[in-house]
This record gives sequence, C-alpha cells and structure tokens, in this order.
Amino acid sequence: MINLASRAHDRRWRIDPIVRSLLDTDFYKLLMLQLIWRHCADVPLTFSLINRTKTVRLADIVERRELEAQLDHARSLQLSNQERIWLAGNTFYGTEGIFRPDFLVWLSALRLPDYNIEVADGQYELTFSGPWAEVMLWEIHAITIVNTLRNRVALARLSELQLDVLYSRAKTKLWGKLDRLAAADVTGIADFSTRRRADFLYQEWALLAAIDRLGAGFLGTSNVALAMKHGLEAIGTNAHELPMALAAIAQTDEAVRNAQYLVLEMWQQTYDGRLKVFLPDTYGTTQFLTNAPDWVADWTGLRVDSKDPFEAGEEAIAWWTAKGRDPRDKLVLFSDGLDVDDILALDKTFRGRCRLGFGWGTLFGNDFRACHPHGHDDLDPISLVCKVTAANGRPAVKLSDNDAKPTGPDEEVARYRAIFGRAGLGHRDVVV
Amino acid sequence: MINLASRAHDRRWRIDPIVRSLLDTDFYKLLMLQLIWRHCADVPLTFSLINRTKTVRLADIVERRELEAQLDHARSLQLSNQERIWLAGNTFYGTEGIFRPDFLVWLSALRLPDYNIEVADGQYELTFSGPWAEVMLWEIHAITIVNTLRNRVALARLSELQLDVLYSRAKTKLWGKLDRLAAADVTGIADFSTRRRADFLYQEWALLAAIDRLGAGFLGTSNVALAMKHGLEAIGTNAHELPMALAAIAQTDEAVRNAQYLVLEMWQQTYDGRLKVFLPDTYGTTQFLTNAPDWVADWTGLRVDSKDPFEAGEEAIAWWTAKGRDPRDKLVLFSDGLDVDDILALDKTFRGRCRLGFGWGTLFGNDFRACHPHGHDDLDPISLVCKVTAANGRPAVKLSDNDAKPTGPDEEVARYRAIFGRAGLGHRDVVV
Repeated sequence: MINLASRAHDRRWRIDPIVRSLLDTDFYKLLMLQLIWRHCADVPLTFSLINRTKTVRLADIVERRELEAQLDHARSLQLSNQERIWLAGNTFYGTEGIFRPDFLVWLSALRLPDYNIEVADGQYELTFSGPWAEVMLWEIHAITIVNTLRNRVALARLSELQLDVLYSRAKTKLWGKLDRLAAADVTGIADFSTRRRADFLYQEWALLAAIDRLGAGFLGTSNVALAMKHGLEAIGTNAHELPMALAAIAQTDEAVRNAQYLVLEMWQQTYDGRLKVFLPDTYGTTQFLTNAPDWVADWTGLRVDSKDPFEAGEEAIAWWTAKGRDPRDKLVLFSDGLDVDDILALDKTFRGRCRLGFGWGTLFGNDFRACHPHGHDDLDPISLVCKVTAANGRPAVKLSDNDAKPTGPDEEVARYRAIFGRAGLGHRDVVV
Repeated sequence: MINLASRAHDRRWRIDPIVRSLLDTDFYKLLMLQLIWRHCADVPLTFSLINRTKTVRLADIVERRELEAQLDHARSLQLSNQERIWLAGNTFYGTEGIFRPDFLVWLSALRLPDYNIEVADGQYELTFSGPWAEVMLWEIHAITIVNTLRNRVALARLSELQLDVLYSRAKTKLWGKLDRLAAADVTGIADFSTRRRADFLYQEWALLAAIDRLGAGFLGTSNVALAMKHGLEAIGTNAHELPMALAAIAQTDEAVRNAQYLVLEMWQQTYDGRLKVFLPDTYGTTQFLTNAPDWVADWTGLRVDSKDPFEAGEEAIAWWTAKGRDPRDKLVLFSDGLDVDDILALDKTFRGRCRLGFGWGTLFGNDFRACHPHGHDDLDPISLVCKVTAANGRPAVKLSDNDAKPTGPDEEVARYRAIFGRAGLGHRDVVV
C-alpha cells in the first residue's frame, strides 16, 4: 500500500536541506567559538571558500539558484532548546559545564550572517564577512553545502539500481578498511569527515559501521549533531583560524611570531586537561616547537596536519624527550588526508611510543573512488576548504609544513616566511 | 512521520510467504508440465528433497513449524487470471501460443498436493507424492522454501546495519562479476538461480543489475514470474526428471536405454525450433551421443550439466561435425555451478566455434561467500536438490557424467550402469 500522505508530501518538497542544525559542525568550531566570543568577538573577519581541485569547475556543475537556496536555509537555523540544554548538560572530554551559560544564551540567538557569491574561472567565489564570532560557523556549513550539491548532481544521473550499486560499493570499501583496522587492533580512530562527507546520512552510516566494527577502538566523531544523536564522544580541539586571525591583526612582526603561542594562552584560560592539544603547523611545526615556551610541553599533545606524519611524529617525540617529558604520556593526533594504509603504518611505527589518535576525514566519510557503477569519477572527493582570508582588514596567511599549500597574498606570504623561516618544510601533493 | 497503518499491519504479519506465485518457478517446469500433462499425467511419482551439504544440519536450523507454514502457503496458491492470460498471450522463444488453452484451463485449477516430512540425521526428509502432473511443480518451490528459511535464520542474527553491510558486499561482488563479463563482451548469459537464490527479492535485484550492466549480453531469466513482471525472455528447456521417470517406468532394459530418446520424440511433438535443446547427461553424455538417432543432431543444441564443461563442449562440437552438421549453427548451453571465471574461460574457448549460452545459477543469485560482516559462513550456499526418486512404484535413477553423484538405490544404479556403461564419465567435486 502506498502512503498517500507521504507521497503527496514528497512531491511538494521545495528543498531537501543539506544543513539541518547549527550543530551539524565540527566540535572544535564550538570550542573555538566560545574562546573567540570571550576574547575577540567583534574583530571583522572574512572566510573564503576555495576549491583546490581546479579541474572540477563547480560553477558549471552546481546551479547558483540551488546554492543560494541551501545557504539561505542555513541562515534560517538557530540553536534549538534541546541542543542548548544538551551542550550545557553533557560531559565533554570528561569535563562538565565546558560551555558557559552566558555563552549558550548568546549562541541561542545566533544566526549566520549574509554571504557573497561571485563566479570566476568556473568556480564559486563564496565569501562570508562579519564579526568573527558571528561568521566563523560558516566554514563547515559552506563546505558541506557545496560538496553535497556537487554530489547530488552526479547522483541525479544514476538510476535507483545504479545508486544502490554505488552505495553498496562504497560501503563494502569502507567495511573492508574497518576490517583491516579491527584485525590490527588499532585504537583512537575518530570521524573527522564532516566537512567533506558524501552527505550527512552517509557520514552517519559510516559512523555506525565504525562503532559496530571497531568497538572501543572507535573514539567518536567531530560532528556535534551526530555525537548528540548517538550519545558519542564529540572530538576536537582547535584549528588554524585562531593563529591566522590573531597574526593578521597583530601590529608588529614580533606580535605575528607570538600569535601562535598567544592562542594557547587564551585556550588554557578557557579549557584545561585533555582539551589542551595544540596545532603547531600554521607557520611551520619546526619553528613552532623550537621557539615554544616550556609550558607548551605540559599540554596533553599535538595535532599533526600538513607535515609528513612520520616526520611529524618523530619530531614531536624528540621534542618532548628533549624537554624532559615522557612522550608515552603525550597524544599525537594525526589528521591530514588519512586513509587506512596511513593509519596502519603510523600505528605500527608509533604504538607504545606515544598515545595515538587518528582523525579520519574525507577517505572515511567520502571515499567513492572506483565505486561509480559505470566507472565515472564525478563522485571522487575534491579538496574544498574555507579559510580566514582577512581579519580587521588585513590579509590572513597560512604557511603550513607543506611548501605547496601556503594561503594568502604573495607579499604577505613572503613577509611571514621572513618572520618564521622555512625550517623543516616539505613538499606534499594534496589529494584530499 | 510514521505510517501507522503500515506499522500496525507489519506487526501482525503471520507469515512472510517465500513463494507467492506458482509461476515463481523455472520456465522448463512449465514446458515439461505441458508435455507430462499430455502424455503421462497420472503416473504416480515421488520427488524427494536432498541436502547434499550434509555438514549443514537443516533440521537443527530451520523450525519445522516454519517449514510447514511455508509449504502450506505454497499449497494455497493457484494460477491467477492475469498469469493465465499472460501465459496464453506471451511469445516464448519467438513462438506464440506455446501453451494450449486446455492445458491452461487445467493448470488454473491446479493446487500442489500434500507433502510428507520426516527428520533423520539432522536433515529434513521431505517427499512429495502424487500424479506426475500434479506433483512436479513442488521441486522448485520446495528447494526455495528450505533454502530461504535457512537464510532467514542467519539473517535474523544480524543488526540492520550488519544486514546492510552483508547486502552491500554481495551486490558489490556480483557487480564486479558483471563488470568482468561486460568488459569481455560475453553474451548469452541467463539467470538460472531461482531454486538456490538467496531469496526472491535478491534474485530480482541480481536480474535488474545484469540487465543494466550486460545490456543485450543478458538473455533473460528462467524464472517465469520475474520474466512476466519485467517483460523479459523466459529461458529454459527440459530436465532430468523426464528421462528418469520414463526409464523408471520402462518394462525392459531396452526401454530403459531408449527412454532418453523417447523424451525427445515426445518433446518435438509438443515444441519445435529454438526449444529443441536436449540434455544428454542423465545416464552419461558419451553413450547418449554415440547411440543417438541421426535426427537428434538436427536439434538446436544441447545443455551441458554434470560433465566437465570444456570436455562436454569439445565432445558436442566433434559429434555435430561427425554427423555432418555445422557446430557454428548449434547452441551449447552451459549450466552446472557456473561462476564468472568459468563463463569467461568457456567463452574464450568456444566463441565462434558454436553458439553459446550460460545458465548462471547459485553463484549469480546467491553468492554470499565472504560477505558476512563478521566472517561467518552461515550464508554460504548449500547444495540442495529435489529429485524424482520413484515412478509407478519403481525407483528412479540418475547416473550423470559425474561418477561422484549418481542418485538411486545401489542395485538399481548397478543395473543402469550395466545398461549404459561408463564411457566418458569423470569425477568432479560438487560445490553448489
């Protein structure tokens, strides 16, 4: 029997919203947001969406009307009572009351500010400007919206049976990866796929599959909405936007150099314990560690992003050792474009030498490579980012450990290079 | 929104019928049935279900109550008006009106006769006795019921997510096979999986996948209900039950020897053209071909079942050549436990030398090997058959080309061996 009510409803769908909750974001955005709200809420900031996969001409694929409808829908969202109460009452990283009541009152009133769309060279130039605290949540929502819209165009070309084959292949591939991780008893795996997931429901499936197959080896998810829905640990610390914005608004070169540590000082005023995991690669990991104040070595651990992960792990262990700390008490959280082979190799190299975490992103929640039923590549993941490009009217810069992916205007990149040097930088191809 | 009506209905389901139509059977059963109805409708016959995979103790797995409920449900089925009209009006193998109106009137009134269940050594001894024309349809329905009930027990142990992984893996595996056949441009593939399919819906999925991936390379299905539903060619010719029953009721050794050819005489009184495909292996292919009357070489082709298919193909080609017929006009239809490697190798060996058909069974519609999410083997296919064991009170015998799988009482097998000899027999392991 057909459910006539459902059928009539389905036919009049005006929009199938890609973002249905402001909490459908990475946990670290909320942690950073509370810090920003306390210290520099009103700094004018601009985020810009950048598609690093230039061969995929998104503006030729995704209709502008659809993009606007999804962005407008995201702007209509507000924190629900249920979400506010959960953020207030839940224990994160073993700590109750991480989010201050006055912050949650402010967050409940927040709506995302307006956006600007231009098109150039077949790409959308999507920018979001406003007070830092109001605009920063756009990062994840903008990426998921553009990514999901691109996928929907490819999916719309397939029959129901072909879609079934596609998802069967992707699920089979993911399950095979989980099988290998389970067989090797790898622990510390977390879902970091939110921004580049295939879509929300597929990310949810991947998450439930990982729980089933990895058991206690699976830590949780960076996605706040999914952590809330399924009672999982919300995982995350902090990101490049903090040092990038603070460096951009710094008045002197010395202040630019110190911005990366100022972030940590502000962080430990707000959070403590297991949340103290630093991200050293904004301007190069080697200079960060070399010049870091001694108290940085007391933090719980670090997150490895743009550096070759084997080098980065060795460098961190050597640094803690030199500082007189036992690396076995310290966490190294790997998070850049990981796939199962990387995770297995890193686990083999570092297990027992330090505590390990694996933030598994695109190739966890969006590995549809070689899954298309007729061999097309239009569902292969692309490298979409949304970065701070300006703060207080000044351009923002990220150098990273990878000489191949600095962001910012050339003259500013050159100035930052002069300040931070090139110690320890490498060259890596960007896959996802 | 929950559909309350559906939910309430689903909860009160008394039975989820495995067989929902008498046409959910192999097409050759209907072709044979019309012949039997014309020539020997009232011969008392017994079919017996035999599980050749003794390690799987079906009576310990499948509840007798469930088995009886499904068998009883099959007994409640009758041909619908829609089905009768389709059988009368559809074109089969290029011919209209294959089924006589008086046969269809008789078939419309048919209900399956009673069954008998005993249990021994952990196996169900399921037998069906009655007039040949009334009892013969039990063969396929009995096998699918027992097979599907066994699978349901294994499926019931899995969570919804695990079921999704299981089906994803099976579909991925099947699609990979279809990819390989498409890449090699293999044609003449037909679905012969009905009796040992995972279940009806999975067979239907496999069928639709094969149509999508193989296009014109896919001929159709042996399943009459699925052919009707999807407008496909119904594929099939005849089976061992004809010579086995005719030999069992024969009065002399000479009549036993001639039964295999008498079948063909009866067949060509009823059918012609492309339906004239003989099955030579009931008592050994070599003796069949050696002693066959010349007119047998005028038939369209033969079906290879129990013999090594490469040997059987060569033997058939040599036989037609010796008889002065061009093998390139003749069809060799392979049908015993085929999988994709066999099909590719046979296609490579015989393409261009004769016309080729591949009746792909268990490993098309039921290959769940290595698909279980946690590595169990309780969904691996088993070798379940339902054979004529007696006709007119006399035991029925099948020797086949495989010395390892004769059926019948030892002394009768010995008598048949004396009549038919052992020329060309081999030894093959039975997988499915």
